[in-house]
Amino acid sequence: MTAPLHSGAPFPATGAWMPGMPVGDRRFLRLPPGRALALDNGHQLLDVTIAYETWGTLAPDASNAVLLCHAWTGDSHAAGDAGEGHPTDGWWREVIGPGRAIDTDRWFVVCANVLGGCQGSTGPASLHPDDGRPYGSRFPVVTIRDMVRAQSHLLTELGIRRWHAVVGGSMGGMQVLEWAVMYPDRVGRIAPIATCAQSTAQQIAWGAIGRRIIRMDPNWRGGDYYDVGPDEGPWEGLHQARMLAQVTFRSDNKYTEKFGRDMADHQVDPGQMEMWDRFGVEGYLDYHGDKLVRRFDANSYLVISKAMEVHDVGRGRGGLEAAMARITAPTLVVGIDSDILYPLYQQELIRDVLLAQGNHVEFALVRSHEGHDAFLIDVDQVGPPLQAFLEAELPAGRA
Amino acid sequence: MTAPLHSGAPFPATGAWMPGMPVGDRRFLRLPPGRALALDNGHQLLDVTIAYETWGTLAPDASNAVLLCHAWTGDSHAAGDAGEGHPTDGWWREVIGPGRAIDTDRWFVVCANVLGGCQGSTGPASLHPDDGRPYGSRFPVVTIRDMVRAQSHLLTELGIRRWHAVVGGSMGGMQVLEWAVMYPDRVGRIAPIATCAQSTAQQIAWGAIGRRIIRMDPNWRGGDYYDVGPDEGPWEGLHQARMLAQVTFRSDNKYTEKFGRDMADHQVDPGQMEMWDRFGVEGYLDYHGDKLVRRFDANSYLVISKAMEVHDVGRGRGGLEAAMARITAPTLVVGIDSDILYPLYQQELIRDVLLAQGNHVEFALVRSHEGHDAFLIDVDQVGPPLQAFLEAELPAGRA
Repeated sequence: MTAPLHSGAPFPATGAWMPGMPVGDRRFLRLPPGRALALDNGHQLLDVTIAYETWGTLAPDASNAVLLCHAWTGDSHAAGDAGEGHPTDGWWREVIGPGRAIDTDRWFVVCANVLGGCQGSTGPASLHPDDGRPYGSRFPVVTIRDMVRAQSHLLTELGIRRWHAVVGGSMGGMQVLEWAVMYPDRVGRIAPIATCAQSTAQQIAWGAIGRRIIRMDPNWRGGDYYDVGPDEGPWEGLHQARMLAQVTFRSDNKYTEKFGRDMADHQVDPGQMEMWDRFGVEGYLDYHGDKLVRRFDANSYLVISKAMEVHDVGRGRGGLEAAMARITAPTLVVGIDSDILYPLYQQELIRDVLLAQGNHVEFALVRSHEGHDAFLIDVDQVGPPLQAFLEAELPAGRA
Repeated sequence: MTAPLHSGAPFPATGAWMPGMPVGDRRFLRLPPGRALALDNGHQLLDVTIAYETWGTLAPDASNAVLLCHAWTGDSHAAGDAGEGHPTDGWWREVIGPGRAIDTDRWFVVCANVLGGCQGSTGPASLHPDDGRPYGSRFPVVTIRDMVRAQSHLLTELGIRRWHAVVGGSMGGMQVLEWAVMYPDRVGRIAPIATCAQSTAQQIAWGAIGRRIIRMDPNWRGGDYYDVGPDEGPWEGLHQARMLAQVTFRSDNKYTEKFGRDMADHQVDPGQMEMWDRFGVEGYLDYHGDKLVRRFDANSYLVISKAMEVHDVGRGRGGLEAAMARITAPTLVVGIDSDILYPLYQQELIRDVLLAQGNHVEFALVRSHEGHDAFLIDVDQVGPPLQAFLEAELPAGRA
């Protein structure tokens, strides 16, 4: 039972973007020195940086700004290609651009890396202002609300009074809902996609198990691994945690269509397999694990997972309905029929609560075998309703 | 980000039953010394032992024997209480007994620990005949067919020409199907429950990730950990792998009903959580992880998981239909509407293939929120159709 591990180039201790690396298309909003960002849990962060990108041109009256909120392992690079400073193609590149669903001839599009992330915004890999060394285990738990609070400084920075729309899928959708609850006057309309108003026990379980997997990797070192050499960081824990998440991001049907019972490495009779010989689906999950390790930080993975687990728009606000009563913005809810991670009933709940309180609500159902990731893949189904919603003349929102 | 680990009594390096421990209700079938058990992969095992239990009385004509096949972490203790030699209550104790669905006043019931298991049958924790030390990393991959081949010696041992029925859920159901394909003359009727004819890519993925988790535990030590002290074995890897499996064994609805967003340890505002503070569902999964570590062996977990991943009744037989054409026994297929691990379509496929070839097939649908584990929990729904099927006058089977 020997265990073949990764092959190929060594894995860095962290895939985080670090100061001194090429900035690519990033811009940086630095909160004023000495101005602390107060967090939900009573902690505060000093010298916070928010990395963001923009596409299109802000109208003179600043009325055309659209904020995109990214998912777990996303970053500010929503559009454009991979290249220097950007390890991946834009996560919604087919949706954003001239003439596309989010038409950059019309909209000024903004996307910021979340607080706790690792692609330019302050997160666990960032340098602590006290000693110039990575936060590591010192980085606090943050919430979706903290992420949104940090993003809210972009309004001032960019001279925008109010977003025309705030749009995002998965964890991006959690931020969208919090934007509408926390800053109803700053949000013209919202599009939460493949997301939920409060994480369920099952979602918490998936997240917690992924976190445990990283914790079990001895190379995680309690969270302080930034000064180790290649392959000495928690790449294996992050890799396996990503494998787990990736199963929940897709669907049974999709995996059957794509892999069935094919082998990964060579045509061996499955009856002759050794313990660590891989089926095709394992090769695919390994590929995704390897890719993530090269561009992500294990501690960011933990912090963001925890933020999603803690997500509950009703927390401290008298419950779900009371919290959502603060939402006045017209809303497009998008759900995916094969989503096993954020099942359709969660988007239907958002719709129904908003409808019951008299909001303008539209609902788009994506029919797909792709599972949760359909919001990134089936852009031909997500784009058109989103485009129509962004461009429609709509009532200004419930008073 | 400190990581609280288990509390309570130390974990043994293995939870396997070992010679010298109380035998409880076990009996042992020892294959004759020198008689090798040939495995699918060309390896062979010498001095194989199969631990089994029986309930009821074999009829003089040996016509009333029912074989039960257990699931992943089950064992021969299908009925009866926990007690000396038996770490758990019988896994189907409410189904088996005088006057129960599997009526021991009528049937002679047999259940054997699978080959590769750890509760008395030969498995990785067993002593290698060459040197009297645990097999550990030397234990070969086995298949469901190998498990059935090993069980087949029970017929001779017990003086049975043919089972009245072979019954089992989950991995037990895989054995049931293999019994009917491999030994059609030895099987009167079969009841595969919450199982599949071939593992899908998604099932393989869940299994493979669990195996990787164990492999990542440094205390797994490549599979050779039997001589280490308490808490120095791969308890953490086995614990986390079980947590993962346990999510797939239940349902989103069930977790919401049972835990929602409750906290595990104390009433803290979720917005104040530290990284390793636990929600209620995590406490539940930890409980199941801890329990398993005390009664199971990490290498058996790997071996049995791999056997399930490799499971495909069509392998080497010209495909699914060709293989199932060997099945002549009347069949009761049981499926569970909330099963996310072995979704209903997999049992419907078994039914439809058998129907298409003209077999006698009955189908029972369990309506439940319990998920896959409903076959162990909702015995009020599983028992009656099973009882009727066992007791019915049925045609002798397709010729």
